[in-house]
Amino acid sequence: MHPNPSSVEGGDPADPATVTGTDSGLPFAPSRGRLRPLGLADVVITGGFWAELQQLNSTAMIAHAQSWMERLGWIGNFDAAVEGRLPRDRRGREFSDSEIYKLLEAMAWEVGRTGDRDMDARFRILAARVARAQEPDGYLNTMFGRPGQQPRYSDLEWGHELYCFGHLIQAGVARARTAGTQDPLVDVARRAADHVCEVFGPEGNPGLCGHPEIETALVELFRATGERRYLDQARLFLERRGHGVLGEIELGQQYFQEDVPIREATILDGHAVRALYLAVGAVDLAVEDDDRTLLAAVRAQTLATLARRTYLTGGMGAHHEGESFGQDFELPPDRAYSETCAGVGSVMLNYRLLLATGEARHADAVERTLYNVVATSPAQDGRAFFYTNTLHQRTPGRVPAEDEVSPRAASSLRAPWFAVSCCPNNVTRLVASLGAYIASADDQGVQIHQFAGSTIRATVPDGVVALKVDTTYPADGRVHVRVLETPSTPWALSLRVPAWAEGATVRTGDGSAVAVGAGYAVVRRVFAVGDEVELDLPMAPRWTWADPRIDAVRGQVAVERGPLVMCLESVDLGADVAGVRVCTDEPPAERGGRVLVRASLVDAAADVDEAWPYGPGPGRSTRDPEVGGQVGLVPYHSWANRGPSTMRVWLPVDDAHGLAPH
Amino acid sequence: MHPNPSSVEGGDPADPATVTGTDSGLPFAPSRGRLRPLGLADVVITGGFWAELQQLNSTAMIAHAQSWMERLGWIGNFDAAVEGRLPRDRRGREFSDSEIYKLLEAMAWEVGRTGDRDMDARFRILAARVARAQEPDGYLNTMFGRPGQQPRYSDLEWGHELYCFGHLIQAGVARARTAGTQDPLVDVARRAADHVCEVFGPEGNPGLCGHPEIETALVELFRATGERRYLDQARLFLERRGHGVLGEIELGQQYFQEDVPIREATILDGHAVRALYLAVGAVDLAVEDDDRTLLAAVRAQTLATLARRTYLTGGMGAHHEGESFGQDFELPPDRAYSETCAGVGSVMLNYRLLLATGEARHADAVERTLYNVVATSPAQDGRAFFYTNTLHQRTPGRVPAEDEVSPRAASSLRAPWFAVSCCPNNVTRLVASLGAYIASADDQGVQIHQFAGSTIRATVPDGVVALKVDTTYPADGRVHVRVLETPSTPWALSLRVPAWAEGATVRTGDGSAVAVGAGYAVVRRVFAVGDEVELDLPMAPRWTWADPRIDAVRGQVAVERGPLVMCLESVDLGADVAGVRVCTDEPPAERGGRVLVRASLVDAAADVDEAWPYGPGPGRSTRDPEVGGQVGLVPYHSWANRGPSTMRVWLPVDDAHGLAPH
Repeated sequence: MHPNPSSVEGGDPADPATVTGTDSGLPFAPSRGRLRPLGLADVVITGGFWAELQQLNSTAMIAHAQSWMERLGWIGNFDAAVEGRLPRDRRGREFSDSEIYKLLEAMAWEVGRTGDRDMDARFRILAARVARAQEPDGYLNTMFGRPGQQPRYSDLEWGHELYCFGHLIQAGVARARTAGTQDPLVDVARRAADHVCEVFGPEGNPGLCGHPEIETALVELFRATGERRYLDQARLFLERRGHGVLGEIELGQQYFQEDVPIREATILDGHAVRALYLAVGAVDLAVEDDDRTLLAAVRAQTLATLARRTYLTGGMGAHHEGESFGQDFELPPDRAYSETCAGVGSVMLNYRLLLATGEARHADAVERTLYNVVATSPAQDGRAFFYTNTLHQRTPGRVPAEDEVSPRAASSLRAPWFAVSCCPNNVTRLVASLGAYIASADDQGVQIHQFAGSTIRATVPDGVVALKVDTTYPADGRVHVRVLETPSTPWALSLRVPAWAEGATVRTGDGSAVAVGAGYAVVRRVFAVGDEVELDLPMAPRWTWADPRIDAVRGQVAVERGPLVMCLESVDLGADVAGVRVCTDEPPAERGGRVLVRASLVDAAADVDEAWPYGPGPGRSTRDPEVGGQVGLVPYHSWANRGPSTMRVWLPVDDAHGLAPH
Repeated sequence: MHPNPSSVEGGDPADPATVTGTDSGLPFAPSRGRLRPLGLADVVITGGFWAELQQLNSTAMIAHAQSWMERLGWIGNFDAAVEGRLPRDRRGREFSDSEIYKLLEAMAWEVGRTGDRDMDARFRILAARVARAQEPDGYLNTMFGRPGQQPRYSDLEWGHELYCFGHLIQAGVARARTAGTQDPLVDVARRAADHVCEVFGPEGNPGLCGHPEIETALVELFRATGERRYLDQARLFLERRGHGVLGEIELGQQYFQEDVPIREATILDGHAVRALYLAVGAVDLAVEDDDRTLLAAVRAQTLATLARRTYLTGGMGAHHEGESFGQDFELPPDRAYSETCAGVGSVMLNYRLLLATGEARHADAVERTLYNVVATSPAQDGRAFFYTNTLHQRTPGRVPAEDEVSPRAASSLRAPWFAVSCCPNNVTRLVASLGAYIASADDQGVQIHQFAGSTIRATVPDGVVALKVDTTYPADGRVHVRVLETPSTPWALSLRVPAWAEGATVRTGDGSAVAVGAGYAVVRRVFAVGDEVELDLPMAPRWTWADPRIDAVRGQVAVERGPLVMCLESVDLGADVAGVRVCTDEPPAERGGRVLVRASLVDAAADVDEAWPYGPGPGRSTRDPEVGGQVGLVPYHSWANRGPSTMRVWLPVDDAHGLAPH
C-alpha cells in the first residue's frame, strides 16, 4: 500500500483526549492526560546505547551500590534497629535509609525488566531486612525515635523522615507494578503511607518535609492501590508548602520551596533536586485532580527553567552553595553543580509533562538530559559516578582510591562512592526503568519519543500495535521502524523530530522521503504487517551558541552532534584546555567517527607569573605559532574516563579572546 | 634651594636596613623590617575621602554597631554570664563575643585618634562588662564551659574560642597602644593570653582553632608587653597547622588551612578570611623570628593570590560555598563572594608585607582594596553594610527593614545588621586605625603610601620630619606635600606612584616636573621648612581588560579612574544593565565629574520568552536602535546607595556580544 503524501505531517499529535492508565511495569500511571505511558511490559530496549547502559546496570552498577552500602553499614542499620543496637551502631547520614529504598526500587525494575531470578532473590532478602525494622504503627527510620536518638519528626527541616518514606513507597510501587500488589514490600510501603496519613493528616501534625519526595510517591501509591487517602495526603502536603511552615534557615526559605506556594511560583528555585521532586509531585496531583491551573503553573515554571536556568547539557543547579538554581542566565560552566539527581528529576518531570501535554519539547529535554547528564554520571565500568557534572574542569582531578568515600561535590573524577550517595542510586533506578520513557500511545496511535533499538507493543482503539525499532542512534541518525502487528484500520505512528534536527526526513514504504520539522512526524494510514517507516535525523556536528545573557560563556561556542554535547579534553589536545581558541569559519568536521574543530593554542602557561592580571592591554596570552590545526572532541558523557584531564564544553572563539581596543 | 634632577628617581626606596619599632598608636609594631610604621600619634588624616569615612565612623558606624549588639543581646551575654543566666539567656552565634571585642578595638583606636572623652567613657563601661565575665583562670567565652553548655575546647573546628581570644587580645593591644598598658582591658587580654599559653602550650592541648586569628594577636601582644611566651605560643599554633590536627569536614581540610603547612603552600586557599588572617600572623611571626623562609613563602603566596585569585576590586573569595578562594582565574563577577572581612584581611596582610619588604605593589593592593572593598561596605549614612561585594547584580535587591537581621551573603543591598556580623565591626576597627596605613619611615627618610589630606611626623636619623599633605585625591590627582619641620641634613621623601599611573610627574621647588614610573618617586636632598613637592597622578578614566584565563569576563571590559573601579548602575542607564554593549573605539570620557562611555543597548527583555537559550545563531538579543550614546558610570564603592538597581563592573563589548559564525 502506498503512503498518501498528505499523511506525513509535522507538529504535535492531534487533538487532546483522555486516556486511561495501564500499570504494566510503569513508574507512573496517570489516570488521564494527553498521552498514555507504555511500561516495561510494553517496551523492551533491545540494543544500542541504552541497552548497553542497562546491561552495565545489571552486571555492575546495582551490585556495586549494594556492596558499598553493605560495607558502610547503611543496610546494617536496619538489622541494628531490629537487634536494639541503635543509636550505637548507626552508620551514615540521616537520610541513608532512602539509599537502600532506591536500591530496592532499582532491583524491582530490573527483576521486572529481565525476570532475573537471582536478582529477585536478592531483592526479597534485602526487602525482608527492611521490613523487620518497621515498627507496629508503620513508622520506619533508623535515625529517629529511639532512646538516645532525636524524637520522631523533631527536625522536619533536615531530618528527611518523610523523604525516606517517599523512596520506600516508590520502591513498593515499583514492586507492585512488576510483581503485583501481593508482596511484603508493598505491604511495608502501605503501612508506612498509612502511618504518614495518620500522623500528618488534616487533624494531625501540620508539618511537611524539608525535602519534597513523598508527594509523588503518595500519588503513585494511590494509583497502584486505589487508596484515595494517599492522594488526599499528597494534596495536603503540596498545599501546605510555601507558607513558611518550616523554620527559617540561613540558606533562605526558597531552599526547600517554602518561600512561595507552588501555584504562585513562576520558575523553579532553591535546592534543585527538591524543587524538581516537588514539581513532579505537583504534576502527578494536577493530573489526578484534573487541576488545570496547577498543571499550567508547573508547566510554565518548567519552561521558564529550561529557558533561563538550564545548562546546555540539560543540567540544572548553578550553585554549589545550597545545591540550588542560580538566577536567570547565571550558568557558570566551571562552577556548574548540575547534580546527577537533578538530571534524574528533570527527566521525571519532563516525561510527566510530555504525557500530560503531548508537547515535544519535553521529550527533547528528556533526551538531552539522559545523554548528557544521566549517562555522564557512571564510569564506563559502572563502578564510579559523578555527583556533580561540571562543564569546565580547570585542573586535572585526583583519582579516588577504590575504597575511598568521597565528598559529594568533588567534581573532578568519578568517585566509587559518596558520603551522600543519592546520585548513583538514582541512576540505577532510572536506567532500570528507562523502557518506560521511550514511547506512548493514545487513541490515534503510537508515539516514539526516544530512539533506541527496541520492541514496542501498544493497544490502540481497534486492536494491538507491535513495532520493532532498529537504530544505532546516536552513532547514526537513521531510525527504522517495522510493523510487527497492526489492526486493519488506520492509526498514526508519531516519531519525534528533535528541535536541533534541521533537515530531518521520513521515508515510508515507497521510499519517498518527506521533509519534517521539529515536533512529531505523524504517519497516519492503514498499516500492514511488514510495513516500514524510516526517520532520518541529520547528525553532522554543529556549532552551538548561547544566549548573550549567559555572561559566563560570552565569546565561547560549543559543539553538538545530534543529541550529544561534545567537549574538549586535555588528553586529546595534549595541552591544558585553557589555551585553546577555536576558529568558527567552517563548521565542525566529522572524520572516521571523530568530531574535529580547527583550533589554535595560546600559551596560557607563559603568563603564569605573579603579576596583576588586569590592565590596559587586551589580555596577555601569547600565541604559540607551533601549535594549531584540527583538535578532536569527545561526547561530554564519556569524559574523564581516561584519567585526570582538564575539560571544556564551551570553547573560546579565536577572534574573541583578545578584544583589543580598536 | 634647587632640586638636583638626579635626586628624583623611580623604583623602590634604597637598600634594606633594620629599624626599631614604635608603638605610638600602632596596630602593628614589628621590631624589624624594611620600613618602620607610623601610628596614629604620627599620622593624622585631616581631610578628604578617608577623613569623611573616619568622621562617619565616629558619628554613626560605631554607635550603630554598639546599639545593634546591645539590642540583640550579644553584649548582654557577658552580663548573663556574670549573673549565672547562661546558657538560658545566650544570644547570637557561637562567635558573637568576638564582635564585641572588635567594637572595643574600634573604640580604642577612635579614642586614641580623637581623644573623645565620651567615647572613652563608653569604652570603659563596655570593657568593664566584658572583664567581669572573665573566669579566675583567665578563660572568657559566653558560649562554652558552663553546665548545659559544651565543654571548653570540645569543638575546636567550629567553636571559635581561640578566635574570640584573638580579637579580645587585639582590643587589649589597641588600648595599650593608645592609653598605655596600665588598663583593665589590657589586663583582661593578658590573663586570657596566659590562659591560652597554659592550656595550649608545648605540654598541653595539642589542638588549634578552626579560625586563625589568635596567631597575629599573640605576636602583637608580645610586641606590646615583651612577654616572649606569647610569641612562642603563636609560633606553636602556626607550626601545628597544616597537619590535619582538626577533624575532617565536608568542605575539606583546606577550608581551615589544615591541608598543607603554610611553609609549603604556594597560594592562599580555602576560607578566604581564615587564610588571610593566618598569613597575617605568619608575617608577624616571620618578622619577629627573622625567619626569611617563612616570610618568603607568605610573600610568594600573596603575590600568586593577587595574580590569579583576586578581583579587579581587590576583593578575595570567589565561592559562596565555604566563603573560599576559587581555583586560579576562577573569578565570576556575579557570584563574587569578596567578603568585606577578606578585604580587611588583605589590607592587613599587604601592609605588613609592605613594611617587611618595601615593595610598592603591596601598597597598590592596599589602596585598591581600601577604595573598592572596604569603602564599599558602609552605606553613605553609615547605618548599613555589605557583607559580600558582588561585581555584578543581576536583579534589583530588596531593601531590608531598619530592624531586620539579614543573612550574611545577601549581596543585594546593604543591610543594617547581620546574624553573622563580622564585617561591619571589621570596617569600624580598620577605619578608626587607618592613619597607621598612610606613611612609614626608615633611616633614609619618609615614605608616603596612601594619599590623603594629612599631617605626618616621623623621626629620621638626624631629627624630626613633619609634613603636611594637601590633596582631594582621588577626586583630583595632585598630591601636594609641604615640609613643616626638617633636620638640616639630607633625607629622602618617597611618594608611591601606583602601577596604573602612567605618565605621573613630580614637581619640586622650582616647578620643574620630572616624569616618574611605577614604584616610588624619591626626592632626596636637604629640605628646608616650607619646601614643597607635588606628585601629579593622571586621573583620566581608562579601559581595563582581564587576563583571558578569567573566562567569566571574556568579551567584557571594565573602567577605572585612578584607584577607583567604576560600575554601571541601572538607575543611571534607565534600563537593566544586562542589555548594555560598550564601544571601546575611544577611551572613556570625563565631563563635569562624570565618567562616560559610549554604549548601545540591546533589547534583552525582548528575548525573555520560554525558548531553549542555545542554538545555531550568535545569540538572540536584538539591537534597539532607539537607545545608545553616552552612559554614565559611578565609583563601585558608591553603588546601591540610590535604591534597588542592577549593576555591572564588567561591561560586554559591543563587537563581542554576537560572535556570529563567519
